[in-house]
Amino acid sequence: MAAGEFDLIARIRARVAAREDVVLGIGDDAALLRPAPGALLVACVDTLNAGVHFPPSASPFDIGWKALAVNLSDLAAMGAEPAWCLLSLSLPEADTAWVDAFLDGLLELAGRHGVALVGGDTTRGPLSVSLSAFGFVPERLALRRAGAGAGEDIWITGTLGDAAAGLSIALGKVPPAHDPCAKQDADAFLLQRLHRPEPRIAAGLALRGLATACIDVSDGLLADLGHVLSAAGLGARIEIDALPSSPALAARLEKEARGRLQCAGGDDYELCFTAPVARRAEVEAALSAVALPVARIGGVEAEAGIRCVDRAGRAIRFDGLGYDHFHSPSA
Amino acid sequence: MAAGEFDLIARIRARVAAREDVVLGIGDDAALLRPAPGALLVACVDTLNAGVHFPPSASPFDIGWKALAVNLSDLAAMGAEPAWCLLSLSLPEADTAWVDAFLDGLLELAGRHGVALVGGDTTRGPLSVSLSAFGFVPERLALRRAGAGAGEDIWITGTLGDAAAGLSIALGKVPPAHDPCAKQDADAFLLQRLHRPEPRIAAGLALRGLATACIDVSDGLLADLGHVLSAAGLGARIEIDALPSSPALAARLEKEARGRLQCAGGDDYELCFTAPVARRAEVEAALSAVALPVARIGGVEAEAGIRCVDRAGRAIRFDGLGYDHFHSPSA
Repeated sequence: MAAGEFDLIARIRARVAAREDVVLGIGDDAALLRPAPGALLVACVDTLNAGVHFPPSASPFDIGWKALAVNLSDLAAMGAEPAWCLLSLSLPEADTAWVDAFLDGLLELAGRHGVALVGGDTTRGPLSVSLSAFGFVPERLALRRAGAGAGEDIWITGTLGDAAAGLSIALGKVPPAHDPCAKQDADAFLLQRLHRPEPRIAAGLALRGLATACIDVSDGLLADLGHVLSAAGLGARIEIDALPSSPALAARLEKEARGRLQCAGGDDYELCFTAPVARRAEVEAALSAVALPVARIGGVEAEAGIRCVDRAGRAIRFDGLGYDHFHSPSA
Repeated sequence: MAAGEFDLIARIRARVAAREDVVLGIGDDAALLRPAPGALLVACVDTLNAGVHFPPSASPFDIGWKALAVNLSDLAAMGAEPAWCLLSLSLPEADTAWVDAFLDGLLELAGRHGVALVGGDTTRGPLSVSLSAFGFVPERLALRRAGAGAGEDIWITGTLGDAAAGLSIALGKVPPAHDPCAKQDADAFLLQRLHRPEPRIAAGLALRGLATACIDVSDGLLADLGHVLSAAGLGARIEIDALPSSPALAARLEKEARGRLQCAGGDDYELCFTAPVARRAEVEAALSAVALPVARIGGVEAEAGIRCVDRAGRAIRFDGLGYDHFHSPSA
């Protein structure tokens, strides 16, 4: 069903939740917002384009969810508490059923994290979702990419490689292996990890004052950890056998293929962070308090570069270390 | 010349101006920003898509300029002082020459208004620029769409219809009439008004505490004034002969065609506002202080709807009252 631009905006506006710090939301030239007193504003933007970040046939619910999730993940990596988002939506036509399902996904995740959609833009164009998200963090508690020290531990939340395995399944590169008798279907789990990532907001808050550097894994572990190390002028040793695997990933892929996806596969949106060795117990307690597994996967070293090793300390090499939107091996 | 995503980001980062309230700009998961104490944050987003908002062959300088200008215009309409912007840029390929020229335009305008580019996203996709802008306004001084009162004057800054005439010229709908001997070439002026709108930031600041309602004219005078009147549940009488024309517009179009563009043509980015009759002299002094012409074009009335009249008070009718991105007569 086709609708006009102002109908679409009214449709979105009618569904948006209130927040006390939103003085004026959707419907004026700009939103009027009351920043948290004494805190820094944390701001980011990420765009998802049809045909690049998702197939044109993707579920609108998943697109709405993921557009917000990837931005909340950036806020999580800063240790921020999320507050608001702005949406710019380009659509080939004003399809209200599509927009309703898209909003279902976006607002479901927004509701879970208390985020208010405060403004935006709807326009005609190839299907594209540009979302910006805003949150707050006290200045001295912000987690940054810079700050890792030689000798510190490298940690990762959750599990790695799931979303990349989900993508391989979605693209038909891994033969489907649905087992209707399994308690949890492995393929369904891996596809869920790809389409509905969970931003690690609670983990980011728990790591305030504890992590020395932090980044979310969107382009692949080695690529994103590389940014943390570059910022510090340092290197690292990563123990491939210590990389956390979900049972679904372990059930579906052999060790080598798994290791490759865990190192270079994107879209997991886990937090990779560094912390002093002396604070291992605190890190484990902090993540346990938010019910998220955490794994110690290596150490920061003075020598530049990332050295992947197996349990016996033997070097392991992979080609392709992450996703560059203009130089991707799959582009 | 092709470049990778991280090269592009480095290229953008190298050119960005500093601001004291930017604690951490481009290069982390999100920007860390220090809001102005005691003020409201004013936030908006607008997207320009190739083939919809500009032809794919448009000058990258103009695209960069206009992407920021349309957002600063929204801040101006709120009476905000601009501070920061976020850029999400989708490009079919990483063309550094294009990006450099695009940044020339964006940063030229950003520099004029002291705006810092603090973060963003570059990704592959059909050419599209999504820009969000942020500023500050003391809560009780914010200009809103709602607030017009019956009996108040309706005002417009600058001149109307220029950008729409520029578009007609660009599309070949009006035969070009370049006069190389003229002091100011009319077509060049009208095209400049289309491609490089000047956000009326100084006017918005001057109108704080003076305008009762305000909007920027992006979709056409009658459409945008309609939002102000709907918000107040009121109507208006507009004197067509009072609509301000630039000498270029007057030289290029007959009265009727001119009136149509002034009422329904978009992209002028002037401020349309209401103010009490008793404050006419103050309005004129405020705009004179920022060296911007201002014209009184009609009055707010209790009866709903907009009545266009000529100098003798006779009703004038136009078809097509502005631009809806999904229901445009030209779509």
